Amino acid sequence: MNSVIDSSRCRGRFLESMDRGDQARTIVIGAPMDHTVSGRPGSRYGPEAIRFASELIEDYSPILDRELADARFYDAGDVLTPFGDIEASLNNIEAACKSVLETDKRLLVLGGEHLVTVAAVRAAHRLYPDLTVLQFDAHADLRDDYLGQKFSHATAMRRVCDIIGMDSLWQLGIRSGTREEYALMRSLGRMVDSELLCGADRSETAQKIIDAIGSRPTYLTIDIDVLDPAVAPGTGTPEPGGLGFGDLLHMLLRLLQLNVVGVDIVEVNPVVDSSGRTSIVAAKLVREILLAL
Amino acid sequence: MNSVIDSSRCRGRFLESMDRGDQARTIVIGAPMDHTVSGRPGSRYGPEAIRFASELIEDYSPILDRELADARFYDAGDVLTPFGDIEASLNNIEAACKSVLETDKRLLVLGGEHLVTVAAVRAAHRLYPDLTVLQFDAHADLRDDYLGQKFSHATAMRRVCDIIGMDSLWQLGIRSGTREEYALMRSLGRMVDSELLCGADRSETAQKIIDAIGSRPTYLTIDIDVLDPAVAPGTGTPEPGGLGFGDLLHMLLRLLQLNVVGVDIVEVNPVVDSSGRTSIVAAKLVREILLAL
Amino acid sequence: MNSVIDSSRCRGRFLESMDRGDQARTIVIGAPMDHTVSGRPGSRYGPEAIRFASELIEDYSPILDRELADARFYDAGDVLTPFGDIEASLNNIEAACKSVLETDKRLLVLGGEHLVTVAAVRAAHRLYPDLTVLQFDAHADLRDDYLGQKFSHATAMRRVCDIIGMDSLWQLGIRSGTREEYALMRSLGRMVDSELLCGADRSETAQKIIDAIGSRPTYLTIDIDVLDPAVAPGTGTPEPGGLGFGDLLHMLLRLLQLNVVGVDIVEVNPVVDSSGRTSIVAAKLVREILLAL
Amino acid sequence: MNSVIDSSRCRGRFLESMDRGDQARTIVIGAPMDHTVSGRPGSRYGPEAIRFASELIEDYSPILDRELADARFYDAGDVLTPFGDIEASLNNIEAACKSVLETDKRLLVLGGEHLVTVAAVRAAHRLYPDLTVLQFDAHADLRDDYLGQKFSHATAMRRVCDIIGMDSLWQLGIRSGTREEYALMRSLGRMVDSELLCGADRSETAQKIIDAIGSRPTYLTIDIDVLDPAVAPGTGTPEPGGLGFGDLLHMLLRLLQLNVVGVDIVEVNPVVDSSGRTSIVAAKLVREILLAL
Amino acid sequence: MNSVIDSSRCRGRFLESMDRGDQARTIVIGAPMDHTVSGRPGSRYGPEAIRFASELIEDYSPILDRELADARFYDAGDVLTPFGDIEASLNNIEAACKSVLETDKRLLVLGGEHLVTVAAVRAAHRLYPDLTVLQFDAHADLRDDYLGQKFSHATAMRRVCDIIGMDSLWQLGIRSGTREEYALMRSLGRMVDSELLCGADRSETAQKIIDAIGSRPTYLTIDIDVLDPAVAPGTGTPEPGGLGFGDLLHMLLRLLQLNVVGVDIVEVNPVVDSSGRTSIVAAKLVREILLAL
Amino acid sequence: MNSVIDSSRCRGRFLESMDRGDQARTIVIGAPMDHTVSGRPGSRYGPEAIRFASELIEDYSPILDRELADARFYDAGDVLTPFGDIEASLNNIEAACKSVLETDKRLLVLGGEHLVTVAAVRAAHRLYPDLTVLQFDAHADLRDDYLGQKFSHATAMRRVCDIIGMDSLWQLGIRSGTREEYALMRSLGRMVDSELLCGADRSETAQKIIDAIGSRPTYLTIDIDVLDPAVAPGTGTPEPGGLGFGDLLHMLLRLLQLNVVGVDIVEVNPVVDSSGRTSIVAAKLVREILLAL
Repeated sequence: MNSVIDSSRCRGRFLESMDRGDQARTIVIGAPMDHTVSGRPGSRYGPEAIRFASELIEDYSPILDRELADARFYDAGDVLTPFGDIEASLNNIEAACKSVLETDKRLLVLGGEHLVTVAAVRAAHRLYPDLTVLQFDAHADLRDDYLGQKFSHATAMRRVCDIIGMDSLWQLGIRSGTREEYALMRSLGRMVDSELLCGADRSETAQKIIDAIGSRPTYLTIDIDVLDPAVAPGTGTPEPGGLGFGDLLHMLLRLLQLNVVGVDIVEVNPVVDSSGRTSIVAAKLVREILLAL
Repeated sequence: MNSVIDSSRCRGRFLESMDRGDQARTIVIGAPMDHTVSGRPGSRYGPEAIRFASELIEDYSPILDRELADARFYDAGDVLTPFGDIEASLNNIEAACKSVLETDKRLLVLGGEHLVTVAAVRAAHRLYPDLTVLQFDAHADLRDDYLGQKFSHATAMRRVCDIIGMDSLWQLGIRSGTREEYALMRSLGRMVDSELLCGADRSETAQKIIDAIGSRPTYLTIDIDVLDPAVAPGTGTPEPGGLGFGDLLHMLLRLLQLNVVGVDIVEVNPVVDSSGRTSIVAAKLVREILLAL
Repeated sequence: MNSVIDSSRCRGRFLESMDRGDQARTIVIGAPMDHTVSGRPGSRYGPEAIRFASELIEDYSPILDRELADARFYDAGDVLTPFGDIEASLNNIEAACKSVLETDKRLLVLGGEHLVTVAAVRAAHRLYPDLTVLQFDAHADLRDDYLGQKFSHATAMRRVCDIIGMDSLWQLGIRSGTREEYALMRSLGRMVDSELLCGADRSETAQKIIDAIGSRPTYLTIDIDVLDPAVAPGTGTPEPGGLGFGDLLHMLLRLLQLNVVGVDIVEVNPVVDSSGRTSIVAAKLVREILLAL
Repeated sequence: MNSVIDSSRCRGRFLESMDRGDQARTIVIGAPMDHTVSGRPGSRYGPEAIRFASELIEDYSPILDRELADARFYDAGDVLTPFGDIEASLNNIEAACKSVLETDKRLLVLGGEHLVTVAAVRAAHRLYPDLTVLQFDAHADLRDDYLGQKFSHATAMRRVCDIIGMDSLWQLGIRSGTREEYALMRSLGRMVDSELLCGADRSETAQKIIDAIGSRPTYLTIDIDVLDPAVAPGTGTPEPGGLGFGDLLHMLLRLLQLNVVGVDIVEVNPVVDSSGRTSIVAAKLVREILLAL
Repeated sequence: MNSVIDSSRCRGRFLESMDRGDQARTIVIGAPMDHTVSGRPGSRYGPEAIRFASELIEDYSPILDRELADARFYDAGDVLTPFGDIEASLNNIEAACKSVLETDKRLLVLGGEHLVTVAAVRAAHRLYPDLTVLQFDAHADLRDDYLGQKFSHATAMRRVCDIIGMDSLWQLGIRSGTREEYALMRSLGRMVDSELLCGADRSETAQKIIDAIGSRPTYLTIDIDVLDPAVAPGTGTPEPGGLGFGDLLHMLLRLLQLNVVGVDIVEVNPVVDSSGRTSIVAAKLVREILLAL
Repeated sequence: MNSVIDSSRCRGRFLESMDRGDQARTIVIGAPMDHTVSGRPGSRYGPEAIRFASELIEDYSPILDRELADARFYDAGDVLTPFGDIEASLNNIEAACKSVLETDKRLLVLGGEHLVTVAAVRAAHRLYPDLTVLQFDAHADLRDDYLGQKFSHATAMRRVCDIIGMDSLWQLGIRSGTREEYALMRSLGRMVDSELLCGADRSETAQKIIDAIGSRPTYLTIDIDVLDPAVAPGTGTPEPGGLGFGDLLHMLLRLLQLNVVGVDIVEVNPVVDSSGRTSIVAAKLVREILLAL
């Protein structure tokens, strides 16, 4: 893991991280890559901003009645992601994730653009061939190519499907895509509309997904833009009409009852949120995930 | 139309605009005027920002299951609006709108301050003497004068009433005004409170308005500040306590079943929204309106 | 009062303030102190920003059907708060509040950090020994010390309890605290969760509080971060998952039926809200409070 | 003067202003007008920002070895300038300036756009028919009309010439204009290039101007964009390649030995300078001018 | 050229561009690519920002006494540069440049990151095998690889040397590099220190370069960070201690007497310059270059 | 040292820091304290911002022809500075500095406000009773108290004089102060005007200071506002008319030939510099100082 993690950056920085990783149950790694982003770049600063924001929240969760000190996690720092070199960046991220999962630890990746999920899923799928992926996102990300490119933030979940198969992907909160992406999603039947994730319906929705997945190993990817831009303006391509914070948190805490082996939070772009609240939102989600994992 | 449109600015720029206007069903024009604004200036940059933001959204609407390519619209660029010269600016906007409406095309104006609506309504009223105007707005804008001025962003809808008559104006979402404006609105009886535009009530409200207006030609003006400042912070005088994006979109799509001859979206001020999401909200509304018109 | 109020700053500046204080029913004072803030400093600019924002709203409240001119209030300007000198700052604020309350006027303090509440409560408690305090806040602020300091924004309400007693504090909307703070709050039993302040439940909640307090003199402190960061991003430590504007306003207007002797609005930090809407939110709350007091 | 000055705004606010104007030697007034600006609006906030910035500087000038307390000036607040109504705005400014000059006090106007100079010069010319005007500026502002408008920030100095005559205008630091403006300036022969205002040459240049003007009453207008955009980025149309702060200050202090009856500082636009230093530059210039007048 | 230029973006937008390219002497193209940038991304917005800024300057140059209308240039819009795909992006830029140079027109490229120069030089070198390149830059950009990548903003000029040979590169204003880069530059002997480009020495320096190059076809690349960060803060990696605007402009105008076949201005990043002045600086340089070419 | 340094923050973060301190020649510590600042707060983020900015510069100095790897320094992280508690903060900083100096290592402190210098000088003076202090600054900071406070950013150098004696302080670049401060500085005779630090005079000035101080142990404090606000806008109270970067760097490199035992760089406030260049300026100064020490 040493060779692909930049040891001078942010190691141990997230609130209440342990000083070393060997006794940890969960490893946090940053993946500061944003070079295929067609919208507004800056998610490379996501991991740094989320760690910085963690100092503005408490280490205690009143919902879970637990403290971070009990979570036994280690923030291992950032993976090296050479700018402009997609392949090397994904390989480095995959290697870092693999070294975490091989030691039976849980994985929490901080993006970076959504393409980092492809690398993490590659690593997880190798160990868990029947992996299911749950995607919270505003955008389908199911294009087969984007302006000729196979590996792009806009094709990320299609590449994930290449690995796990189209039948193993659940998509929650999608509200933007091309006609072709929507045709595909509708045919697959595992797209869950925002309305079913909110208010009175959300509990039933969560239970249906839990029942359908059962004990299969699960990877959870959270594109922060699944939230409404009012709640999380700091993202490259904000899409009006998203989830509230409470609804997302409720769904997450329910779905973390599944056999979750890895989680990522991606597309946090602090450059376009001068209020800093998107990073705080992400840091609070990280805290709850660490406590619930 | 040539003489009042600045051909070097933004012509054909909105996502998927046709290259020429003659075969178009709808014409988009920008009206970058903000010189009577007493609050924070900057809505002059609204048209430019909305066009730029259109590149961050898809050309497909999952709600309407249609693509912009089918909408047959042309973005004609910006009207010339000499700064400080209200009369010349309004005359230019009116001339541009008239040339659109005369050829039986639909009109979509991007503001600019709310005063641009007066010019557009003038042009529409000449062709459709029984015109009804539907106003989505946080502010009544019904003052008869503002610090002595007859033409001001704060008097815009009063000037509209001078043209179409007080009985032909519907006001939706108003939550700010003077005592006199509220007295007037209450006496007229066509003010619809925000609560009736939200949640369970919105469908019934829409139907009532549709029934009342019937087949009369209708002009729809959307002041972006009808939305809550959390959703649309980029506006000169944000007023706390407004509509959510979903509620506004739902109402709009219902009301576009009326005989709508023109629409405008005004008061988008990108200068005071460093996150850029207000322009994206406006661009998404434009897409849905173009597809629904 | 003269000696602790800086007469060159902002006197008479809030929208429709009277020119002098002697005939006023309510006195507004600014307390531009933020030196114990561990998060992002800048609430020292809160009073100035709220006054500036007051020019962007109307002087008429459609909810209360009253105008500010009827409210008979005077904006007395800012208290001198020497930076870095907590004791002198609190003493000055206390002296200014005392001089207001002694003349049987109502008090409205614009913060500044939450520690200013301690000074105001000291002054109020001297005159009203059975004072009750209602706290709207995202954070418990009940630590006994913070990094060894007794007087800190994080200990503010604990210091208030030292004055009025633990049984006289109500806490509304709290969603962040340490394990110890939550243990304390749960044992005291006057913590009201956000859900009870929203939607259908809010009326009943308000009535319960009113019944419990009865005619006791009451001080109301509003930390702006009780609102969701989407609504009020301009604050030092935004905490995801807060109240909406409508819910807070409704609760406030109900609770102002109590025997309220003073109110404060604290932690407005315009530095981290480039859209300026947090200050407008605060200014609108000030207007409604002045009209309802 | 009362009827055109807004008494609720900023009266007495500039650092060390006297509390009343009757004993003052110099009167400062704000002219927050920017409605003809074609570039980036926001100079309406100039007067407010300069006053605010005055708190960041000392009241003592080490160059002049004098303190503001000795300057005997009064900050009278802002003139009412109805947005969009050029004529009313200029008339109000003229009336305010006239009332100052008639009582034999010196005038210092804080803009606002450059058009405010026209109003001030009108007032001064009535009392001093042989008035000379010295213009520090990056732009010639000598167009006869701008997009058909006679009164515009781009025609300001041409309108000044209509009042005082073309032979009574000196232009210093101009580095931008149309071909026609340059032809005019070259024919008039009182344009002084930036190079002559810098370094070793500046003393001699100042003396030449002083000798040429002699004892004629003089009005000095300083468009802040005469400074290099590195020094004063907060202005609507920054023009690369301007003066340094030291050079401008040196020239000003020399030229204030003339019989100066009025001064203005215009085009400070705090909206486009998030560092705030342009307002501080202006505040320091105001201090030195007040001490040297 | 059509297939690689995005016709919906910015065509004809730079101030006073002709409406079509066939009669033009110079063609302007945008190259909005920034995907190998290791510093702060955003130069993808450079071309758009420079065009927008061109509206804030005049079309007349007082130094050259010429107007843009005489320059006969056409702004052809932006090259398609798929994000994350370096090879496709460079190929597209090269194709666009080739199509310009083949018709004997002059080329002016607006970046984008410095790597775009490699593509332009490839196209130019094919037509002019004895091409000389003049580089204004703060950074040497002579690494052979950067974190393993051959094509990177940090290796751009090394790749240029691969094409034209190390003996054909002049480097002006460099003030940052690795020990190895400096060793290389010192051995080559065509690095010109900032001091020789300023003040009294600049004329002699220009003449020496002109004499050395003679009539060889020359390509001029201007990394905006050669200017001091005070003058041009909007760039990814500002390096303290650079040139003033006047010195750069003087050198440029002198060197444009050479047989210049192409010019680029790169690394303008408007995202990190909220004052907008870097884009204005670039637009003014573009004007002077267009007039001098 | 452990007890006062926060080990989770930024340890080892500055470019090319060693991994541990025991073999280091110089120790860098951050002092993120800004609670007495009367101007714009935010220098608490200075140390973090300077470290972050260090990644944007090279590790090689072309002036000194040396690389950071040769400098043998260790970045020890940030001292704990409880907000609002001046005494505890200064004591912690003093303890951290003492532990560095006692082991015969050189000290480099990153502020934070100027008051941190008092703590560092206390520690240095204990070991070196004949300590001389060289102050680069725009402001005298010689008040005896500020609004009644003895310890304030405005009294910092007076407190330093209390320790080392008035005869041991040199002040360079001062251009702002009260009448009393200037009277004192003029009487002491060791104030060096900006003009003597620039251009042709700077070498002679440096030599005079070096001759006067001789071999006495020296502490060098650099308030970043000694630079012109154009060069370093990110500071609480920018003062127009300061040094250029080249002049400051030249003076520093000369004065580092003295027997320098400690250096600090204070008042870097990244909050008010959205371009980020002030932090880069500071990081480059740090690099040169580390290489020259």
